[in-house]
Amino acid sequence: MSEELVLASASRIRADLLTAAGVKFSTKVALIDEATIIDSLVSEKLLPRDIADALADLKAQRVSGQTPGAIVLGCDQILECAGVLSAKPTSPHELKSQLIGLRGQTHQLHSAAVIYHSGQPIWRFVGTAKLKMRFFSDAYIDQYITDNWSTVRHCVGGYALEAEGVRLFSKIDGDYFTVLGLPLLEVLAFLTERGVIQE
Amino acid sequence: MSEELVLASASRIRADLLTAAGVKFSTKVALIDEATIIDSLVSEKLLPRDIADALADLKAQRVSGQTPGAIVLGCDQILECAGVLSAKPTSPHELKSQLIGLRGQTHQLHSAAVIYHSGQPIWRFVGTAKLKMRFFSDAYIDQYITDNWSTVRHCVGGYALEAEGVRLFSKIDGDYFTVLGLPLLEVLAFLTERGVIQE
Repeated sequence: MSEELVLASASRIRADLLTAAGVKFSTKVALIDEATIIDSLVSEKLLPRDIADALADLKAQRVSGQTPGAIVLGCDQILECAGVLSAKPTSPHELKSQLIGLRGQTHQLHSAAVIYHSGQPIWRFVGTAKLKMRFFSDAYIDQYITDNWSTVRHCVGGYALEAEGVRLFSKIDGDYFTVLGLPLLEVLAFLTERGVIQE
Repeated sequence: MSEELVLASASRIRADLLTAAGVKFSTKVALIDEATIIDSLVSEKLLPRDIADALADLKAQRVSGQTPGAIVLGCDQILECAGVLSAKPTSPHELKSQLIGLRGQTHQLHSAAVIYHSGQPIWRFVGTAKLKMRFFSDAYIDQYITDNWSTVRHCVGGYALEAEGVRLFSKIDGDYFTVLGLPLLEVLAFLTERGVIQE
């Protein structure tokens, strides 16, 4: 019998990606104060990709402590534009400022996945994608926020590429699953090798 | 008032991608004998990417003739592995042969989009993605076909990347939308520039 997989993330899209891939898992959310931890890691001058990795690690570690014997997958995603990090927008007003800052620029998304087993890290990966936003109008930003706020408030950067967010972009370099927040191919390769899913 | 957009494709995924991006359009399907045309183009030694382009062109042209004044988007996707083309599988048995042929290999997907207006082509693009399948077991192929045949019979190559098909792959290089069968970013950029959708 294969080992139990636990997803240590509250993100709907990550659960949807694993489900679509035919992977069986349960979900257990680690309660951590993400904003405070990010501030602390930024002040320690960690690179954005290492911040994503550290947060994914912390989530997997917490849940692994509560589920010994299980394979626990922790994930995190960080958006970086010219060295500055963006998180999920806390208001439509903040989202407008973010989009004005990102418009016409190229930013990077770092998606980290860390797997723990019985309290120990056994695998990790960080995928990075580069995305260029087109120079959309202020009127388009206002319309976009009005039409999409209820869903994009839960998204890093305030966009969902599987929805109208795709219209913000002129170029996307890198793995789509990394953009969505889970380096799925790499995770599946590990789970296959480990025997958690069929070869 | 902006021009009317017509999608000259019966593909559900293409319609879903445009709808998700917030684009308004209607659908009108061009009835063409795709298999016969592909055979003829292959015998004329056209390159796979040019076959995808020619089929997308033909679909857009046909529908444009029936909808003067509209912006008509034709699309096609061709899978090529070592110079050999694969189409949608016609039986579970054929799909098994296809997957055995593609297993462990890298293949290319060419996704063409052609836009017509009043019977004339006004824009075209072909995106190409490279995909490497892992060396999965025969048992996995059988299980995969049993579980997924009803949906993947409609897919070039017999897989849907937004579903369990992702587990067939070890590496995907190239634009995700190109893999799904519509070079969405490029189409959206044209529609924006043309004024069909908001800037």
